Amino acid sequence: MTTATLDRSVIERIVREIVLGSATSGKATAPKLVVSISARHVHLTDEHVETLFGKGRVLTPAKDLYQDGFYAAEETVAVVGPRRRMLPSVRVLGPTRPQSQVELAFTDGISLGIDLPVRASGKLAGTPGCVLVGPAGVVELKEGVIRAERHVHMNHDHAAYYGVQNGQRMNLRIESTCTLVLEDLLVRADGTSKLEVHLDTDEGNAADLDKATRIELLKPR
Amino acid sequence: MTTATLDRSVIERIVREIVLGSATSGKATAPKLVVSISARHVHLTDEHVETLFGKGRVLTPAKDLYQDGFYAAEETVAVVGPRRRMLPSVRVLGPTRPQSQVELAFTDGISLGIDLPVRASGKLAGTPGCVLVGPAGVVELKEGVIRAERHVHMNHDHAAYYGVQNGQRMNLRIESTCTLVLEDLLVRADGTSKLEVHLDTDEGNAADLDKATRIELLKPR
Repeated sequence: MTTATLDRSVIERIVREIVLGSATSGKATAPKLVVSISARHVHLTDEHVETLFGKGRVLTPAKDLYQDGFYAAEETVAVVGPRRRMLPSVRVLGPTRPQSQVELAFTDGISLGIDLPVRASGKLAGTPGCVLVGPAGVVELKEGVIRAERHVHMNHDHAAYYGVQNGQRMNLRIESTCTLVLEDLLVRADGTSKLEVHLDTDEGNAADLDKATRIELLKPR
Repeated sequence: MTTATLDRSVIERIVREIVLGSATSGKATAPKLVVSISARHVHLTDEHVETLFGKGRVLTPAKDLYQDGFYAAEETVAVVGPRRRMLPSVRVLGPTRPQSQVELAFTDGISLGIDLPVRASGKLAGTPGCVLVGPAGVVELKEGVIRAERHVHMNHDHAAYYGVQNGQRMNLRIESTCTLVLEDLLVRADGTSKLEVHLDTDEGNAADLDKATRIELLKPR
């Protein structure tokens, strides 16, 4: 369990990162816990980058994300839903991936008219599609529009600290004027990741995360 | 504790009511639990109804809400925030009240540029204001824009069933693909209310309430 005072670090609007020191935990070994709120965003294949932005084009990193090697790109696309409603400017995150994927909050899904399935990143079989519109072209995704399943990245040391393993589930309690417990965060443990919880804007807004006074990552009993 | 299978009753978009029978609880006395999601809405004074809609005008009930005597009106107003951003059509709920009040989700507050305080209904001192625009006139509210504190209405029999009293707090656990526990629901017990939890759209969307498979109202340990 990590309990902590709040120190706020807003990287940019696309990904708000709530940084929690471990000063009040009383445990010298408590790892630093970062909770990031991902606004709606898109991951693209190399091929789709060229279709949307032009032959030979690659993504232009604009802002590093908390996990090493990941970034918000300068590029944005329009996401068009089945009712011809549109989100006009959705940020692309890099690097590119083997399959393009659109991650939305439920609020976005309602405005687009898409009934979003909750999926782990990359588990896209049978998910809804959409149309992406860029300055140089259009991509019709047959599938790939999801609400990302809430999850926590960590390395093996963090996993040992919490007593969990890759693929297990944890709970996140956010204390604020709108206190809540988010259950079943998927643990994604590997050799190199920083300790970071990924939530979407609906979850962050429900909890008023920006005004949180205490955050705990908990192993379910 | 009420655990229940789900039966859905959507009254209209302004207030979605998730009705839970008590069939699976095994307790004959378990009361029916309704969870309602209130979209953004406005309560008005008689005077403001006349200013906004015309001399001598009163609200026109369009749809009864779950609690007896309350209704969604046919009337809507535009809510204008400090950055001159606007929510063009916000439903008015009736009956009228001694003080006008605007209840928004955080998502609405972000789009309007208002940092919403979380308040119990009617506790408006020191809250932000806004401008309301109707077909017949304009009202400048000096205060009254809030995120409504999550709460549960009940009568004294329900309170006795749960072992709680007016003013105490309870937790609501919503089991879905996005399971969460909302803590600190304010208990509003009186002689006549039906058992009903009031959430806002951020909370409903965070939990994917429409797809909930189990909902429990719990007395904190």
